[in-house]
Amino acid sequence: MSLTGKHILSSDQFDRDELERLFELADVLVPVARGEQVTRVLEGAVLASLFFEASTRTRLSCESAFLRLGGAVTSTTGTGVTSISKGESLADTARVVGGYCDLVVMRHPEVNSIHEFAAATNVPVVNAGNGAGEHPTQALLDTFTLHREFGRLGKTMDGRRIALVGDLLHGRTVHSLMKLLTRYEKMTIVCVAPEELGMPAELLELAEGRGHQVEVSDQPGQALREADVVYATRLQTERFADKPVPYSDDFRIDRSLVERVCREDAVIMHPLPRDSRPGANDLSADLNQDPRLAIFRQTDAGIPARMALFASVLGVADEIRGSLREARWYRPSFTGPDDAPFYRNSTR
Amino acid sequence: MSLTGKHILSSDQFDRDELERLFELADVLVPVARGEQVTRVLEGAVLASLFFEASTRTRLSCESAFLRLGGAVTSTTGTGVTSISKGESLADTARVVGGYCDLVVMRHPEVNSIHEFAAATNVPVVNAGNGAGEHPTQALLDTFTLHREFGRLGKTMDGRRIALVGDLLHGRTVHSLMKLLTRYEKMTIVCVAPEELGMPAELLELAEGRGHQVEVSDQPGQALREADVVYATRLQTERFADKPVPYSDDFRIDRSLVERVCREDAVIMHPLPRDSRPGANDLSADLNQDPRLAIFRQTDAGIPARMALFASVLGVADEIRGSLREARWYRPSFTGPDDAPFYRNSTR
Amino acid sequence: MSLTGKHILSSDQFDRDELERLFELADVLVPVARGEQVTRVLEGAVLASLFFEASTRTRLSCESAFLRLGGAVTSTTGTGVTSISKGESLADTARVVGGYCDLVVMRHPEVNSIHEFAAATNVPVVNAGNGAGEHPTQALLDTFTLHREFGRLGKTMDGRRIALVGDLLHGRTVHSLMKLLTRYEKMTIVCVAPEELGMPAELLELAEGRGHQVEVSDQPGQALREADVVYATRLQTERFADKPVPYSDDFRIDRSLVERVCREDAVIMHPLPRDSRPGANDLSADLNQDPRLAIFRQTDAGIPARMALFASVLGVADEIRGSLREARWYRPSFTGPDDAPFYRNSTR
Repeated sequence: MSLTGKHILSSDQFDRDELERLFELADVLVPVARGEQVTRVLEGAVLASLFFEASTRTRLSCESAFLRLGGAVTSTTGTGVTSISKGESLADTARVVGGYCDLVVMRHPEVNSIHEFAAATNVPVVNAGNGAGEHPTQALLDTFTLHREFGRLGKTMDGRRIALVGDLLHGRTVHSLMKLLTRYEKMTIVCVAPEELGMPAELLELAEGRGHQVEVSDQPGQALREADVVYATRLQTERFADKPVPYSDDFRIDRSLVERVCREDAVIMHPLPRDSRPGANDLSADLNQDPRLAIFRQTDAGIPARMALFASVLGVADEIRGSLREARWYRPSFTGPDDAPFYRNSTR
Repeated sequence: MSLTGKHILSSDQFDRDELERLFELADVLVPVARGEQVTRVLEGAVLASLFFEASTRTRLSCESAFLRLGGAVTSTTGTGVTSISKGESLADTARVVGGYCDLVVMRHPEVNSIHEFAAATNVPVVNAGNGAGEHPTQALLDTFTLHREFGRLGKTMDGRRIALVGDLLHGRTVHSLMKLLTRYEKMTIVCVAPEELGMPAELLELAEGRGHQVEVSDQPGQALREADVVYATRLQTERFADKPVPYSDDFRIDRSLVERVCREDAVIMHPLPRDSRPGANDLSADLNQDPRLAIFRQTDAGIPARMALFASVLGVADEIRGSLREARWYRPSFTGPDDAPFYRNSTR
Repeated sequence: MSLTGKHILSSDQFDRDELERLFELADVLVPVARGEQVTRVLEGAVLASLFFEASTRTRLSCESAFLRLGGAVTSTTGTGVTSISKGESLADTARVVGGYCDLVVMRHPEVNSIHEFAAATNVPVVNAGNGAGEHPTQALLDTFTLHREFGRLGKTMDGRRIALVGDLLHGRTVHSLMKLLTRYEKMTIVCVAPEELGMPAELLELAEGRGHQVEVSDQPGQALREADVVYATRLQTERFADKPVPYSDDFRIDRSLVERVCREDAVIMHPLPRDSRPGANDLSADLNQDPRLAIFRQTDAGIPARMALFASVLGVADEIRGSLREARWYRPSFTGPDDAPFYRNSTR
């Protein structure tokens, strides 16, 4: 089933075959994402980037991915989307903007918005986050990161032990990721959260229904042992305005904890941003030199993953390979000073 | 008289010959606007898109039009145009920005701003709305829509009966449109508004002075009969903060009214956004499946109309035809699910 | 010492040889900056334009410069850089964004921010203003303007008398400029400011240490005599919320003053914006027709100067000359109606 011309609203739309096709293409696009090669397959195409809720990281990543394919971007951000405040329906906005572009990427604070929007235009719409709903391109880049990391480590995707840690109730990222993980075989998914912030039951049932083992824990110190992947998330403190945050220091994932309990070949991920303020119970910056920390390999992976998705939705996936040429400008041999040695100079 | 190098400040600048030249070019550009063909005539050129007043629709449409010509865009929006707040004159801003680009598109909340701005730079400036003043590119796309619709219906532009409905006092869109309608022959222009919101007298006189018949009415139920075009506008409720809005349900243009009084081949237009909230007296969404509703054909038409204008102002109109190539990416055969059957697959 | 791959954080990084190389390249790029020629050396490259503090002029100038080189831009502006508000460190933001682009231009209200940011990514970062710190690309364009003006006047860069006038305490622009002026020989630098707003002592000492003559004055009427350059600055009134502004009418540089005391071949500059409100003690608009007023030649010069810098940092400087082609679109023969006669048609 081809993605060409499809709206991308949920990570449930990607089955295993589709994921493998996308990752094969994304692997080819890594040097383009890094500015080492150039493709112009989308020269003349226009992306409308509509962020009704601000999101610097996701917006820049999507826009850069489209630009790296040779396309152009017109962008709007914030609640200042003025026609809405004059009583315009999302359906009208969608049909109008559909006439201005070839692809829409949209983030909106309300869960139903993306469906209302996508129903009103035949121009493909990519969901970049709909409230507490889904974030399928994040799940795609997370899974592409696993594909890259397990490839490097000589591990298969199947049969892995994946620990999801933190606020699993509110994080649309882990919800979308759960749906993709269950596309593989014989996974053990360990949901590590305070009791009040556990993974929603229907997602646990989905995983079990697809034949995976599910474990639930509120003890990171125990649950991270033997995990192939530790996927940490930020506590969304903005959702706890009035009540005490049900979160203890046990959920701070730092060097001391990782050295005590994690595998030597663990892959430590996080959708970012992480809270680096003093006292935050989040993934700690003291892990920055630990090669197991994959968070920036993960954000880097967002560009080729989104490029592969956009190229597939716009039906130009088959033209990528023949379109590549070498870039002529300077590019550092590694992007960050703390990049792990195996990641430097090895992006192709 | 060529448009090359001219500021475009008022719709009065387009005479009939100019309109016909622009529409002929815009017809050629429709497939580019839809992402079916590509031109790169403006590759290397830069548009400065300055919106001192937010306007998602007009800004995205102008930016997309420039991008579709192969150009690039640098954009600023909102009152956060910081140099102004430090006491900079609009003249200084204009001269400075003129040195950064090849074309300026500007919207500003004050009527005189565009003239002050344009006087200070020789780089062409296009007025994208100056307070209660004018909106010439909107009038251009509206008239281009008439050209397309009448062409489809086998009608001439001359001798048509055009009903303008709603708040005709505050709407710069209908003011700019009036000036273009009067460029044709023997029109009947029916101004349908509550008495307090009627078309300004000098525009009525302009139309009469150019030999057209003008009728004034506050009864939509009567005035829309036999109209070739019904051009509805949004009540600008934000202008009635303290006083009662002088607007009755009679001004809701919905399916019931249209089926009762409109011609079978009427063209129903609106500059958008329309107010779709419950109880709004605006153009109703229950007309969305009625093929007479041309509002999205109208917004679609904004891209080729603005492309034609930008190409003419920048003197590359004659290079368009020779520059076209087929696009390779996916494009839906029709943009919206409710697009009228005659509009699908017929954009060239 | 090549600039390729370097962060550009301080104007101190440019020695005289480097300045001359940059200016030679910028001279070649003037016609591209004006839209008369096209280069595409950076086609496929992406600039991330991060303005944590709004700045319309600098942002548009940097973005236009990158676009004129054939590159593409993804941009974010304002305090709405959301990941920061969720507790993300600047270091994380830097490493993440470094994976999205080939070059970062950043402005931030805090002095130390640029260093923290640049330390976390190997992708080159250009400082576009760090609080009261530096603004090296402004200093570069200011010095490039001197190179152009003195070239036109048949003067050498060395041995000139430069008067810096206004609030020399708070202006990062003049601080960065001081560092570049001292790269030349035998300059006389006249610092003209109210006593409370004088040039910081360490910058005076720097100039003296490098063998230049330094004079300090609070009397513009005296100090501007015989100056080759009068560089005026805006009083940053926003920094004097509670106390009286220590600034007299003597610091209004207007036609009357200039005609009384300035040389016939003086070059009058200003980093802009200038305060044009009635009663402002700034550079007056009544000088707009005086050919000595170089302020718009100065802003125009920002495009080729920044293009030369970006091309050098990205290692494509040597490819510029071979890449040029003529532009096909309309360009006015002079950008502003008040442009001095010698500046019209003479940009190449």
